[in-house]
Parts: sequence; structure tokens; C-alpha cells
Amino acid sequence: MRTRHDAPRSGCPIHQALNVFGDPWTLLVIRDLMFKGRDTFSAMLGGEEHIATNILTDRLRRLEAAGLVVRAPDPSDARRHRYRLTRAGIDLAPVLLEIVCWSDTYLETDAPPEVVDRMRTDRAGFLAEVVARWEAGA
Amino acid sequence: MRTRHDAPRSGCPIHQALNVFGDPWTLLVIRDLMFKGRDTFSAMLGGEEHIATNILTDRLRRLEAAGLVVRAPDPSDARRHRYRLTRAGIDLAPVLLEIVCWSDTYLETDAPPEVVDRMRTDRAGFLAEVVARWEAGA
Repeated sequence: MRTRHDAPRSGCPIHQALNVFGDPWTLLVIRDLMFKGRDTFSAMLGGEEHIATNILTDRLRRLEAAGLVVRAPDPSDARRHRYRLTRAGIDLAPVLLEIVCWSDTYLETDAPPEVVDRMRTDRAGFLAEVVARWEAGA
Repeated sequence: MRTRHDAPRSGCPIHQALNVFGDPWTLLVIRDLMFKGRDTFSAMLGGEEHIATNILTDRLRRLEAAGLVVRAPDPSDARRHRYRLTRAGIDLAPVLLEIVCWSDTYLETDAPPEVVDRMRTDRAGFLAEVVARWEAGA
């Protein structure tokens, strides 16, 4: 898989991964696709963080280049595209889950308590459902 | 806990967390403290990614402000400081573990296979050891 920036400075797996998603926006695009059902450019643009058009364009392009997202014409409107996570993209679910749990503990968030509880008490079941939903959308 | 940037744009726990560590460097500083035994400014500066002095200064300052890192005078040399993760900082261990496992699967890294195997097959044991090592260093 190609990473999005210049050649990495080390082979450290954390550094390599941050070359792909180490910025404030990329994981939010992954979140939109994984959890929010936002699979078009305009739906993502309408997200609660008001991502700028140029940043969203750039991040989607990088995610496609890195093999985490694929783009296809919308069957219901060929002028539009729909975005979809690849297997590498959906496999970031455990990373997002751990970020949510940490954030819920240490920051002020509006994460629904019942969802976070589920992540903590039935981690494997929660992750299996995320993958099953993704597979069903293929 | 204070986040490092301006007021977050939403209460999304992922967005909130990325306000703290959503950049290419912050999690590498956490990594240095958690896994590499680099607890001084000069040790971190000597890391394999050659972080720039001004970036390291900025990230350590932000991590202290966010309550993830504390700084104390070095007992063996009062002109130096030693950095240490707080409980909130060490609790990022599951996030880093999941990043390493994902990166090992999809990117080219030099992660030692036996360490990644251990993360995958004995996740709870691996994480308990990370915390125990941190507690022993208190």
C-alpha cells in the first residue's frame, strides 16, 4: 500500500500509519464512511465539523491512493460518486473503537453512553457488527 | 482535560481525540515514552524520525497542557527534565497497539514479528505489561 506523504523516515509501524492518517481530518472521513453512512462528497461536506471542500477533496484522493477507500459512480445518479471503505479501511475499526473509548474517558464528548458501553463490554461483537454491515453494503 | 487546539467543532469523540493527537508527531512522542524508554528531550530528539527541535518542544508543551505528559527535574541532573506519561497517556496503549497491528498488516514496517504476534494473541497480557512497566517507573 502506498502511503500518502513522502518516504517515511523510519520503518516504525506507528510512524508509517501516521503517514497515512496522522492528521486531524483523515480519520473523520473514515468515521463518516464507517459509522455515519455518509458515502458521498456532499454528505461528508455536511458533517458536523464542516470540513472545507479542498481538504475533503485532498483527503479522499489520498485515501484512494493509499487503498483505504474506493470510489464508484452512484448507480442512481451517474454524475455523482459513492465512496466505500476497502478491507484495509474497515480494518481501522479497532483503532477508532479504542480512540472513542479513550476519548470518552478523558475528554468531553457527546458519544452516546450506550454505544461506548457496548464497545467496552462486547468489543468483539461490536467490531463483528461493523464488519458485517460493511460486507452487507458491498 | 484541555485539548490542544481551538474549541472543537463537534462533540464527536474521534474529533475530540484528534484535537489532542491528530498530527504526524504527537503519537510518536507518546510511543517514545511508552515503548522506547526515551524520557528526555535529547533522547526524543535522537529518535529515528529526526523530529525537529521546534516541533518536539511544541508537542511536549501541548501534551503537558492536555494532561498526557508530566515533566519533572531529572534527579541525576537538575538542569535536565524527565518526561513521564500520566494515566491518560498510558491509557493510549490500546490505541497504539491497534495502530501497530493494522500497520503491520497493510504497510511495510520493521515491527518485530514476535512483538506483533504477542499483541494479537495475548492482547490483554501485552497491555497489562505496558501498564505494569509504567507503574514500576513511577
